[in-house]
Amino acid sequence: MAGLTRIAVLLSGRGSNLVALAEACARGEVPAEIALVISNRADAPGLDRARERGIPVAAIPGKGVAREEHERLVADAIEEARAQWVCLAGYMRLLSPAFVARFPQRIVNIHPALLPSFPGLEAQRQAWAHGAKVSGCTVHLVDAGCDSGPIVVQRTVPVLDDDTPETLAARILEQEHIAYPAALRMLLTRAWRLEGRRVIFD
Amino acid sequence: MAGLTRIAVLLSGRGSNLVALAEACARGEVPAEIALVISNRADAPGLDRARERGIPVAAIPGKGVAREEHERLVADAIEEARAQWVCLAGYMRLLSPAFVARFPQRIVNIHPALLPSFPGLEAQRQAWAHGAKVSGCTVHLVDAGCDSGPIVVQRTVPVLDDDTPETLAARILEQEHIAYPAALRMLLTRAWRLEGRRVIFD
Repeated sequence: MAGLTRIAVLLSGRGSNLVALAEACARGEVPAEIALVISNRADAPGLDRARERGIPVAAIPGKGVAREEHERLVADAIEEARAQWVCLAGYMRLLSPAFVARFPQRIVNIHPALLPSFPGLEAQRQAWAHGAKVSGCTVHLVDAGCDSGPIVVQRTVPVLDDDTPETLAARILEQEHIAYPAALRMLLTRAWRLEGRRVIFD
Repeated sequence: MAGLTRIAVLLSGRGSNLVALAEACARGEVPAEIALVISNRADAPGLDRARERGIPVAAIPGKGVAREEHERLVADAIEEARAQWVCLAGYMRLLSPAFVARFPQRIVNIHPALLPSFPGLEAQRQAWAHGAKVSGCTVHLVDAGCDSGPIVVQRTVPVLDDDTPETLAARILEQEHIAYPAALRMLLTRAWRLEGRRVIFD
């Protein structure tokens, strides 16, 4: 499979964005191969989604392990799998500056809000409680901050008066499954550069 | 003109949102009459836009006047014009809690970003420099904070790779001219309530 970029996906939960990425790769829409899926939780359903597709998995528990040690194990597994890009897909741990520096501008995350609004946990509930009339999702390069890196793609959804945080989250998730493969395809197939914080595609 | 709500428009600049509101009122899309336009700058071009339409104007200079005194003059002019709602349209002064309390939930503002992202000055430039891929405008009720009140309407625009802050601002302005009349029409014609910060229309 020459020409395919090897990527590692890090997750902690159900792995719906992993599935969206894997299917986009299988359809040839993203010229990548998921070389490894890593979870900090051995019971993450996302690991099963990977196994079903024949994708190698690694459970590297984070509990009771010092962060530097845990991140060293994760980074070593990524490099052993010869993955050049790292895609966070519901990975519920903050990455240290040292980890981020090991994969410069090669770590991507998806966040269920229109950053810089509503960073951090429960972004959909934050947007709902704030009374935003529009929300969405953001695919961004990861820097050493929390949901603060340069933005690659954003997609919007309306927030409806009869929404609950759950119905809003479901609407956003549909857009995540479009936005993440689209952003990865752009990053892998087009020339791009940073101008300040702006991700500019040629 | 029975049935028309009397509104006061406060501005400091060119008054393009005043024009959009006045035209929507003239077309019957917003059941309101602009009873008075107030500017803190006597040379604001928006005052000419009002005069052209036969709308009463008041220039109440803010420079060199204590804020409480200036706001008292503005509030007195609004009440003398028997305006029940106050629409801020590029009014470049923060309103004090005392002023806001004088017109509870009857002051509306439009902001050229998707709040809570990019409050404050030069919101379009902030969004551009941050590298947001989506921005837009927000019509919100005014509380004692800066661009922090409950949101009524938001409309989005894409941010393009070849945008400048100026081309982005022009694209947002088009949506402001749609959003502001739409929000005012909703507030004046439909039952609504606040649930926490959420503006809910019945």
